[in-house]
Amino acid sequence: MTVLFSYPGNEKLAALLVEKAGYDFGAMTVRHFPDGESFVKLEADVKDKDIILLCSLDRPDEKAMALMFFAQTARQLGAKSIELIAPYLGYMRQDKRFHEGEAVTSDVFAAFISRYFDSLITVDPHLHRHKAMNEIYTIPSKVIHAADAIADWIKDNVETPVLIGPDEESDQWVSDVAKRAEAPYIVLAKTRYGDKDVKISVPNVDNYRNHTPVLVDDIISTARTMIETVKHLKEAGMSPPVCIGVHAVFASDSYDALKASGVSRIITCNTIPHETNKIDISGLLIN
Amino acid sequence: MTVLFSYPGNEKLAALLVEKAGYDFGAMTVRHFPDGESFVKLEADVKDKDIILLCSLDRPDEKAMALMFFAQTARQLGAKSIELIAPYLGYMRQDKRFHEGEAVTSDVFAAFISRYFDSLITVDPHLHRHKAMNEIYTIPSKVIHAADAIADWIKDNVETPVLIGPDEESDQWVSDVAKRAEAPYIVLAKTRYGDKDVKISVPNVDNYRNHTPVLVDDIISTARTMIETVKHLKEAGMSPPVCIGVHAVFASDSYDALKASGVSRIITCNTIPHETNKIDISGLLIN
Repeated sequence: MTVLFSYPGNEKLAALLVEKAGYDFGAMTVRHFPDGESFVKLEADVKDKDIILLCSLDRPDEKAMALMFFAQTARQLGAKSIELIAPYLGYMRQDKRFHEGEAVTSDVFAAFISRYFDSLITVDPHLHRHKAMNEIYTIPSKVIHAADAIADWIKDNVETPVLIGPDEESDQWVSDVAKRAEAPYIVLAKTRYGDKDVKISVPNVDNYRNHTPVLVDDIISTARTMIETVKHLKEAGMSPPVCIGVHAVFASDSYDALKASGVSRIITCNTIPHETNKIDISGLLIN
Repeated sequence: MTVLFSYPGNEKLAALLVEKAGYDFGAMTVRHFPDGESFVKLEADVKDKDIILLCSLDRPDEKAMALMFFAQTARQLGAKSIELIAPYLGYMRQDKRFHEGEAVTSDVFAAFISRYFDSLITVDPHLHRHKAMNEIYTIPSKVIHAADAIADWIKDNVETPVLIGPDEESDQWVSDVAKRAEAPYIVLAKTRYGDKDVKISVPNVDNYRNHTPVLVDDIISTARTMIETVKHLKEAGMSPPVCIGVHAVFASDSYDALKASGVSRIITCNTIPHETNKIDISGLLIN
């Protein structure tokens, strides 16, 4: 018997997983005392059971202690196995000591998670210098890709799409989704003249004036790249784009800023709970 | 050579320790990215050095990841030993599973700290069911007591003091400080008639009308007990009290509430940086 616990805030995706996979549902109480300490309680029996904690790891610092308390308590109470489903996995960006004295947080955080959980499932982790999860995670991990789900959504919802990659780094990502969506794609050409002075051009823009531009990126965090791209598409005379992100991190007021930038729609996968979640990846999270 | 690093916010106490013990000072940068992740950098060389991190552990959740990043980075960069001075140690209160499914956070947090640091120094940890630190901390730990420093402050600053313990639980604490300060003490008698209905009386109040009441507690967090006690001293016709806490946790607006409750002074030890810090315990933290 598998029991799926939902870290507070992840209830919608938890309900889909419970419904589709037939897991038992286990609530998890997390309260914060006035002094800033956390209180954690498992509201279902775990003895001799395989259990899953569903917790998206955006804003990881505020969740990490509660996560550790959950896992150790489940272990003390006799859980047979403890899996973490982190549809969004934080701390994947600082994957190198760029300057002496810096913490390589991706590696240390991976060791932390690997210590408390037995296995991990995540969706499109931001792998860059590390090419595979097992370079930093010592527990078995399974990576789910949202590209098919995104491509299906585009096919169903966008007429005459042209996919747009904001920069060279996104080339592989965007070309992959474009192929699956059977749509053309453009990667914008970026030329830096200095820290603040970047010229962006849309190659072959005249071929795509009647297309709907679709911006795709893995993480929408500050949304700065996307907002910049929207501006340049507008300047090139293209229609207001559809913006798609796998992970709706949306740091501080970035969602409002992106909405105000002149987009037609903002769409994300339901890896981080957000009102833009339109692409359901729950089916992919079930073995 | 010992290098003392200061977690941001602990600079005043760090400067005292560096001055008194002759440590080298090492700055530590902690920045938070807009997406809620932490960036940590050690600003001094640690190779083959004994290092100390000074970090008071109030609001522990927001510091825990940075603490872990610091310690693991120091280790990777060749530090000989890594000591944590946590003048205030969080997560000492939930020391028992009161109800099935609850995390015993004191034990799990102790295991977490013990994993990343080699030794620990703290001031008056809130030991209750656990009688000694080594029941939960597996690394060598040293406990400093502030009672003498508090007693000295009272002798130097309060005329005709009478020490007040807010409840039976504080008896040992208060009687100890009273003895060292060569002052009388009263522990208030508390009678509960229900959750919200508690009658408190001041035993032998007539003997102490010309004394200055001095409230002493280890932690001032919500300050609710202290504010309640101030009220009852007032009702009993005593002078406005001096309130002394070892640890100035001061959750949310509790400091303002305590100031407004009719006290003459609020005094704390400098274990948690706060404007009430008047009792310096830095000398006690040095071997």
